[in-house]
Amino acid sequence: MKNNFTPYYAVIFTSILKEEINGYSEMGDRMMELAKKQKGFLGVESAREDVGITVSYWNSLADIDKWKQNSEHALAQKMGKEVWYKSFKIRIAKVEIEYEFKK
Amino acid sequence: MKNNFTPYYAVIFTSILKEEINGYSEMGDRMMELAKKQKGFLGVESAREDVGITVSYWNSLADIDKWKQNSEHALAQKMGKEVWYKSFKIRIAKVEIEYEFKK
Repeated sequence: MKNNFTPYYAVIFTSILKEEINGYSEMGDRMMELAKKQKGFLGVESAREDVGITVSYWNSLADIDKWKQNSEHALAQKMGKEVWYKSFKIRIAKVEIEYEFKK
Repeated sequence: MKNNFTPYYAVIFTSILKEEINGYSEMGDRMMELAKKQKGFLGVESAREDVGITVSYWNSLADIDKWKQNSEHALAQKMGKEVWYKSFKIRIAKVEIEYEFKK
């Protein structure tokens, strides 16, 4: 992810999947591809063990809202609720401070 | 994690480990145990694939700062920089909105 100037916004998405997740991985890849093209998108980081954590970074709350309303994304959200997720939590947070360490 | 009232704070810690990580897992467990006892600690979620993501949640910036200064934690941070991490990034963010879905 490129360097950004604070403040910017983070969407912290944490989720627990069901056992059967046919089509989930493909949809995830497609959403990544699509998110990267959105206005105000700054980057994304993702990992899953017991819990899945995806944090995406955005210029503004308006950009996040627009991405939420995107029609293909809206369909993915609907599928997520109906098919793949046991539970999830979304937190929208304003990044105020950042600090980086590189060897 | 129990329900919290916004706003509260998230520390988004993303990291890339080196190949050799002797002692890392034990230190991680100890830091989890210790963090949970700190004033203002609300919860933590963690997953690692290519990147490790740990998000901890706190009542206030003052609580986060106090945890940062904790002497045992300070030693772990020093070890992290010198021994285990190739790189890491810390973002401190104010959680303004949260939304939960449960089946």
